[in-house]
Amino acid sequence: MIAGVPVRAGDAHVAVSSTPGRRRIVIVGGGFGGLQAARALRWADVDVVLVDRRNHHVFQPLLYQVATAGLSPGDIASPIRWILRRQQNVQVLLAEAQRIDAEAHVLHLDIGQLHYDALIIATGATHAYFGHDAWQTHAPGLKTLEDAGLIRRHLLLAFEQAERTPVQAERTRHLTFVIVGGGPTGVELAGALAELANFSLARDFRSIDTSCARVVIVEAGPRILGAFPPDLQDKAEQALLRLGVVIRKHSPVTGIDALGVTLADGERIEASTVLWAAGVAASPLGRSLGVEVDRVGRVVVRPDLTVPDRPDVYVIGDLAHFEQDGQLLPGVAQVAMQQGAHAVENILRRFGNQPVRDFRYHDLGNLATIGRNAAIADFGGGWRFSGVFAWWLWLFVHVLKLTGFRNRTAVLIQWAWAYVTHQRGIRLITGQDPVESSASDSSPSAR
Amino acid sequence: MIAGVPVRAGDAHVAVSSTPGRRRIVIVGGGFGGLQAARALRWADVDVVLVDRRNHHVFQPLLYQVATAGLSPGDIASPIRWILRRQQNVQVLLAEAQRIDAEAHVLHLDIGQLHYDALIIATGATHAYFGHDAWQTHAPGLKTLEDAGLIRRHLLLAFEQAERTPVQAERTRHLTFVIVGGGPTGVELAGALAELANFSLARDFRSIDTSCARVVIVEAGPRILGAFPPDLQDKAEQALLRLGVVIRKHSPVTGIDALGVTLADGERIEASTVLWAAGVAASPLGRSLGVEVDRVGRVVVRPDLTVPDRPDVYVIGDLAHFEQDGQLLPGVAQVAMQQGAHAVENILRRFGNQPVRDFRYHDLGNLATIGRNAAIADFGGGWRFSGVFAWWLWLFVHVLKLTGFRNRTAVLIQWAWAYVTHQRGIRLITGQDPVESSASDSSPSAR
Repeated sequence: MIAGVPVRAGDAHVAVSSTPGRRRIVIVGGGFGGLQAARALRWADVDVVLVDRRNHHVFQPLLYQVATAGLSPGDIASPIRWILRRQQNVQVLLAEAQRIDAEAHVLHLDIGQLHYDALIIATGATHAYFGHDAWQTHAPGLKTLEDAGLIRRHLLLAFEQAERTPVQAERTRHLTFVIVGGGPTGVELAGALAELANFSLARDFRSIDTSCARVVIVEAGPRILGAFPPDLQDKAEQALLRLGVVIRKHSPVTGIDALGVTLADGERIEASTVLWAAGVAASPLGRSLGVEVDRVGRVVVRPDLTVPDRPDVYVIGDLAHFEQDGQLLPGVAQVAMQQGAHAVENILRRFGNQPVRDFRYHDLGNLATIGRNAAIADFGGGWRFSGVFAWWLWLFVHVLKLTGFRNRTAVLIQWAWAYVTHQRGIRLITGQDPVESSASDSSPSAR
Repeated sequence: MIAGVPVRAGDAHVAVSSTPGRRRIVIVGGGFGGLQAARALRWADVDVVLVDRRNHHVFQPLLYQVATAGLSPGDIASPIRWILRRQQNVQVLLAEAQRIDAEAHVLHLDIGQLHYDALIIATGATHAYFGHDAWQTHAPGLKTLEDAGLIRRHLLLAFEQAERTPVQAERTRHLTFVIVGGGPTGVELAGALAELANFSLARDFRSIDTSCARVVIVEAGPRILGAFPPDLQDKAEQALLRLGVVIRKHSPVTGIDALGVTLADGERIEASTVLWAAGVAASPLGRSLGVEVDRVGRVVVRPDLTVPDRPDVYVIGDLAHFEQDGQLLPGVAQVAMQQGAHAVENILRRFGNQPVRDFRYHDLGNLATIGRNAAIADFGGGWRFSGVFAWWLWLFVHVLKLTGFRNRTAVLIQWAWAYVTHQRGIRLITGQDPVESSASDSSPSAR
């Protein structure tokens, strides 16, 4: 425990201990950015409070593996407390940040308020439906472990329903999977899903042939994987086609309901499973700063990552709108982590009355995987790979970055097993009354 | 796929294929009993339909490990389809059995009806609150993966709440864990929980000392682990006491609410976590047979495991009330599995016009574990062990019995890791808005 005076409960302050004479740095969000910031403060003589509404850090790049029954939630997530257990100057608080009073240097939480000397906001983004909130119920997005569990449940139930109904039209609908959005998440979901159907489930069912399942990527723009160079986009497309994935470009979605999607050209795709991998919106916390935000709510930060007129408030990661050489930085882990470290450096420089530095992102490359054995990698400067090598590289990089030995070994085991047997091990349908929610349209009474 | 004529959807029959000239055996429930029955039919020339409302088989004896964040759900559960994927004469149906029309040889499901030539009912039991259904919300029981997830979430949130509140009384309440019932489940939960607090979480928190957590077993009867011989009961008690677990015998519970439990002698134990490991009730399906059931709803079966006057309806496992040498057989996996195999043998004998045989249970021994390194084993005939050897035996037996290579390896990895580091890896709080549901009594407004 930190030696110090716990704040009393009389006032609305939350119970975190503070060391006399030490400044307090508050970090909101335990994602890649926030965690990196906390770690960068390991040797600093400050009190650090990391606030997150969840108790765990999720390794986002592998979330699609949980959604497609390849990995367990426990394999890609670790308790934030545990990750930071050895760093004695950090206190982790399970709470929800509601608004920031920058004038008073106070962060308002659902359980009280917290004073800060410097604040790092890294609450990231969630999926956005461009004003079509009704779509959310029919087309879940993939941002949290809960999302992944929901999608896994939905996917597996679709196959169960197909097996149970004798009506061909229903079967086809249950075996059609539409993914809205051709970015990395959409592509990785499509690849994993096609493998699930073609290989993992092949022997499980008796009435249906799971390899007849159709996976469709619906992309509004002209290309998939916009962030990658064209030649790698082509490689990715070929890999997807080999897996039997259908790719529809120039196809904005105009409608989503329980039975499928409607495209701008009026075409209708009947599907009982629609997944949302299209748009994101920044977390609402940014707006409470009362400064300029962009179209999706990202806070437009200054070159040193602070908020205008608030030299002690930093915004990083997916929540930050940062342009470099006239280009907006992408919402990837690398950017968030580099910004987290940089924000900490600037905070300590200010505490030491030194001038702060502008942030500059060093691109370490892009990786995306398309099912088993196929991936694409782009490290800039002509360093590009695709195919098996890129896949192993992808595997290596991602497993290496998992927090905690247990996760790494567990994940390697799972993959070794999946690789040899083509099985995805975590095909569990959990949640309240698995049957009820699915029986509706396949029960005789409904016909 | 099974060559055969799929039943049309016009009538209310569900879509399972049936082979002309083959008899159909329907098994309800994919637990130890039902699964064993399905496997015993591997070489039989019959159509087998296994119905379960969940898509996965759960290895019950390790469920408490999931509840205490030691294992992932995926480690102890496998999809029933996958377990039986190679057995071509089995069709698995995700559906809920509602009632049995034994006269017409028809099983009614939520998605239609199913004709059978022989029926094996193995729907097991769920936890019962002896008429105090209000207790269920405050004292969850442990039967399904959902239960385990709920309990894990509850346990971990209790520590988070304790860390967040500066009010000592609240802290104590959040750090008190009451387990109602001193059977194997209660004892194993208590042991695992004590270790979670004493070791796994020790370094995670700053304001609280998790080793101050109190784990209390409340047992109505005179002894814990009633099914074991007295000397092993004593060994178990000593092991629990070493872990700091408080054992209250002769203490029936008279009240359970959100803030704790009240005992018959009027004593009150303030606790924000109460777990139910006391009573079970048989699944309601048994009653729909219209035959004699015992106090908790178990079907009183004949010596050959059939239901009176229904030679083609078998009831096995936790749902069956079977007395041997004047003693009711316990609700353990061994009994269910032996009965499953025996029921199949009798069914095939009847199909072959041979006389059926009476069932006899061969006790292969009892195992229970008390945290790390301590366990007790009783194989009858003086073969008893306790301590480290019994623990390794327990580990060996249980890991060996897990279905699927992936699970075994994953579980071994987890345990090796937990054993060396004292860490329980799966400490994730998931579920809808983790904070809201917990913030209530620690938010300043509530004071």
